[in-house]
Amino acid sequence: MSKISPLQQARAAYAPKLPAALQKGAAVCVQEGEATTAVADVEKVQALFKSTFGSPVLTFAPGCGEKKAAINVGVILSGGQAPGGHNVIAGLFDGLKSLNADSRLFGFLKGPDGLVKGEFMELTADIIDAYRNTGGFDMIGSGRTKLETEEQFEAAKANCEKAGISALVIIGGDDSNTNACVLAEYFKSNNVGIQVIGCPKTIDGDLKNEWIEASFGFDTACRVYSELIGNIGRDANSAKKYWHFIKLMGRSASHIALECALQTQPNAAIISEEVAAKKMTIGQIVDDLAAIVAGRAAAGMNFGVALIPEGLVEFIPEIKVLIAELNDLLAANAEAVEAMDKNEKVAFAAGKLSAESAKVFASLPAGIQMQLCNDRDPHGNVQVSLIETEKMLAEMVGTKLKAMKAEGTFKGKFATQTHFFGYEGRCAAPSNYDADYCYSLGYNAAALIGAGRTGYMSSVRNTIKPAAEWIAGGIPITMMLNMERRHGADKPVIRKALVELDGAPFKEFAAKRDQWAKETSFVYPGPIQYFGPSCVCDLVTKTLTLEKGGSI
Amino acid sequence: MSKISPLQQARAAYAPKLPAALQKGAAVCVQEGEATTAVADVEKVQALFKSTFGSPVLTFAPGCGEKKAAINVGVILSGGQAPGGHNVIAGLFDGLKSLNADSRLFGFLKGPDGLVKGEFMELTADIIDAYRNTGGFDMIGSGRTKLETEEQFEAAKANCEKAGISALVIIGGDDSNTNACVLAEYFKSNNVGIQVIGCPKTIDGDLKNEWIEASFGFDTACRVYSELIGNIGRDANSAKKYWHFIKLMGRSASHIALECALQTQPNAAIISEEVAAKKMTIGQIVDDLAAIVAGRAAAGMNFGVALIPEGLVEFIPEIKVLIAELNDLLAANAEAVEAMDKNEKVAFAAGKLSAESAKVFASLPAGIQMQLCNDRDPHGNVQVSLIETEKMLAEMVGTKLKAMKAEGTFKGKFATQTHFFGYEGRCAAPSNYDADYCYSLGYNAAALIGAGRTGYMSSVRNTIKPAAEWIAGGIPITMMLNMERRHGADKPVIRKALVELDGAPFKEFAAKRDQWAKETSFVYPGPIQYFGPSCVCDLVTKTLTLEKGGSI
Repeated sequence: MSKISPLQQARAAYAPKLPAALQKGAAVCVQEGEATTAVADVEKVQALFKSTFGSPVLTFAPGCGEKKAAINVGVILSGGQAPGGHNVIAGLFDGLKSLNADSRLFGFLKGPDGLVKGEFMELTADIIDAYRNTGGFDMIGSGRTKLETEEQFEAAKANCEKAGISALVIIGGDDSNTNACVLAEYFKSNNVGIQVIGCPKTIDGDLKNEWIEASFGFDTACRVYSELIGNIGRDANSAKKYWHFIKLMGRSASHIALECALQTQPNAAIISEEVAAKKMTIGQIVDDLAAIVAGRAAAGMNFGVALIPEGLVEFIPEIKVLIAELNDLLAANAEAVEAMDKNEKVAFAAGKLSAESAKVFASLPAGIQMQLCNDRDPHGNVQVSLIETEKMLAEMVGTKLKAMKAEGTFKGKFATQTHFFGYEGRCAAPSNYDADYCYSLGYNAAALIGAGRTGYMSSVRNTIKPAAEWIAGGIPITMMLNMERRHGADKPVIRKALVELDGAPFKEFAAKRDQWAKETSFVYPGPIQYFGPSCVCDLVTKTLTLEKGGSI
Repeated sequence: MSKISPLQQARAAYAPKLPAALQKGAAVCVQEGEATTAVADVEKVQALFKSTFGSPVLTFAPGCGEKKAAINVGVILSGGQAPGGHNVIAGLFDGLKSLNADSRLFGFLKGPDGLVKGEFMELTADIIDAYRNTGGFDMIGSGRTKLETEEQFEAAKANCEKAGISALVIIGGDDSNTNACVLAEYFKSNNVGIQVIGCPKTIDGDLKNEWIEASFGFDTACRVYSELIGNIGRDANSAKKYWHFIKLMGRSASHIALECALQTQPNAAIISEEVAAKKMTIGQIVDDLAAIVAGRAAAGMNFGVALIPEGLVEFIPEIKVLIAELNDLLAANAEAVEAMDKNEKVAFAAGKLSAESAKVFASLPAGIQMQLCNDRDPHGNVQVSLIETEKMLAEMVGTKLKAMKAEGTFKGKFATQTHFFGYEGRCAAPSNYDADYCYSLGYNAAALIGAGRTGYMSSVRNTIKPAAEWIAGGIPITMMLNMERRHGADKPVIRKALVELDGAPFKEFAAKRDQWAKETSFVYPGPIQYFGPSCVCDLVTKTLTLEKGGSI
């Protein structure tokens, strides 16, 4: 056994809390609701999911410990790491054993690939115990292969049958759960006796809706980032000489930036969804930030903290257009461009863009122009994820402030430090919230398997209350689907949850941000605690608290 | 009162532990040791410190609660932030009150500047209470002004006398404590009745010696960095697709990188002192890293973690020469260079360097060449602190691996993520170790004041044992001095503690690193805990444990 840290040793003994419905085992009493439909495009969704469409919402109540037949179950971790994945597996393991001590759990290795290639290992009690309450996905690994083709489904079927596996649990984000739903439909409509259950995972927080109130890992990741933002804020407020521009992981939605802003009260935080809704230009964003810097400088405060969501540039309409033009331009002239040096490519692009895009392009720092024209992915496209947005904004705000200084509208100093937090939080040991929530999701998945269901997502709700009051059950995944255009074709997908500008979390932020900009209202959350008083250890995100009508 | 986090609220109640000698108040029994000397250059040091040289080492034993006359004391935070500074002040406050409830404490604002300018505030119980066990230096701010000139000393004297202050406590690193010593000598030799006491602070860990076993903040900062390194290691080991190159704060010594390596067991960690001792070239460092990457790739592991100390480039002899040449070259041709564009400057430098430096320069990535020639400080010198060493090494290792792939000696993939951790840890809330140690240092400073001493550093030793067994006392700062060349003149300074290659911490690392490189032995320390079992909360750094003969 490899060396483990004192905290990991002590934390291994933590017994995650369970909803009352699951405390007597996974053989629950199942209460069926009304038949369901889909969030939109009902007819199209129904046509695609003939066998699984319309299943009822399920709510569980404590059972009487009825014993079920022993079965073999497979579990898959899909996509990016999120704190708590091991606890989903531990909960699933314990739940299955509560149904029948002879049931066995198998982990497919390196994500969906393991299912397709038939690579798996049995997860015995010893293995499970070594990973309880730990971060990471290293128990069985994860992967980004998408389960989409009939060929993959047939391989999955064959591999499950070989191992006697009659139920699969897929732990993943919106795409992975959509694919779980497609696989469930495929198996059911082809009379393959393999159940498929999904579990909602993503640190980005964008897999949530009326029935799934949180995706696991969001709480822990935001707490790690907020710990660091708080430490940096305290440094800024001590040294009083730097503006810290901090980029936070999360490309498709700004939930992380919003939650961290609510936890730490920075001087500025950009929310991509607002930028898109207001059709803001990069110039406006820079001007807004410069105005905050100048306002604080006028009050003698040449320091601050600004949060920037990773996906920002893709939400700025004019930059989206610019990137699309660049992609077309460089593809159409691939051969000529190939022969140019780095500077020539920039000059070439600048000369060929539309007038509007050329203006936007010219407003960007030289390093970003260089990167946009030179770093291409294998399809020849701009690599948006490589854009160092935090540095770009720091530089552009600096340029703007120089102009303001010349005009006499800025009289301070502006020195910056930039940071990007992402990998620091994805594999952190889960907070109590995530440890409990994940364990419950896994245990609950066992209950769904025991109840003979397929095409369901494991659902645990009412999590702003103590765990005993959490509501366990299952939601038909078809219910969350709508049709969206993907790669030129209509596909059934779970609608991504973006930050809602009329939602309580954003409204709270919008109501406070001017004060946070002017004053120094930093809050210092500190590191996640596992052993202290409940008011310190059993926290719920500000986002969820506000969404559920609470105050923070 | 501004909003404070739940953890900060709960942590405010923590009562830091004290050495037995201080548990009955700061009116201790003083045991004097032999007269002391200096670590080197004894005659020169003695000549400069006629009044304070040779004072005995002091050891404290519990006193009988004797009451002292009420006095006013001033406190200064000097230099970069370090976790626990507020607790030094809280301990000092409580210690002074134990001597006489009418004693008062004043905080000079924004560091030594506040002393020179006479800017200060009284630190009352309400203020102190709001900052107990918190990170940051925001209670009174800090600054980097050096107290060196007679003019400053006279201003300090006048400002102290105006406020009736008869003792100063200067909390700072090696330079600040040297200056505290010079100020103590100035006051004593001029019959100014103001005592001066120093407290050893720096996250870098380079202010330590036979008598000062740790500088405060090092423990907490290393734990925050190790939390993050552990999380990243777990991510690397889960995703199995990235090499993470992590730069850690600490320019003049690699204690942080070494401690974090001992805590997290990364695949590689560079120790600057070893690079200097072995006169390694940048090419050798790159080759060594590439060999580790290739070795792991051959075993199927295309991922890893490498730690890089911030000050590395200044320890590589050939880069030191290159930078010196560049500084001279660009200064000697300032006017011509001024007129060049960025690329021209690089070409100019490349053409004028000595043959050896030109070769080193040519081996560096284009971005680094550009930065070396274009980013100059106000004195026209290369800004070493702006060099993104972590990116430079990632790029150079990548280039080396491409060559190895062509030769057939590398058959894996190499994708990197880079990180820099510094500001994330300097203002973290102090660990129990730092909370206790800092509070004890401050309380102990009050005892030194009560004992009528000046020119002493507050010393608390034996900290690998429970706090009650810690040894409190005072060390004459003159004892730690030697003469060093600074800006063309011999100056008395406290010798900086570098990583000793024959010391136990480095030897432990050197004995294990090959195994850590080949295997995946990551340890995941997790976040600092304040409320759990003592084996989780009351930790001592691996460095100190090993230095004191313990095992880890």
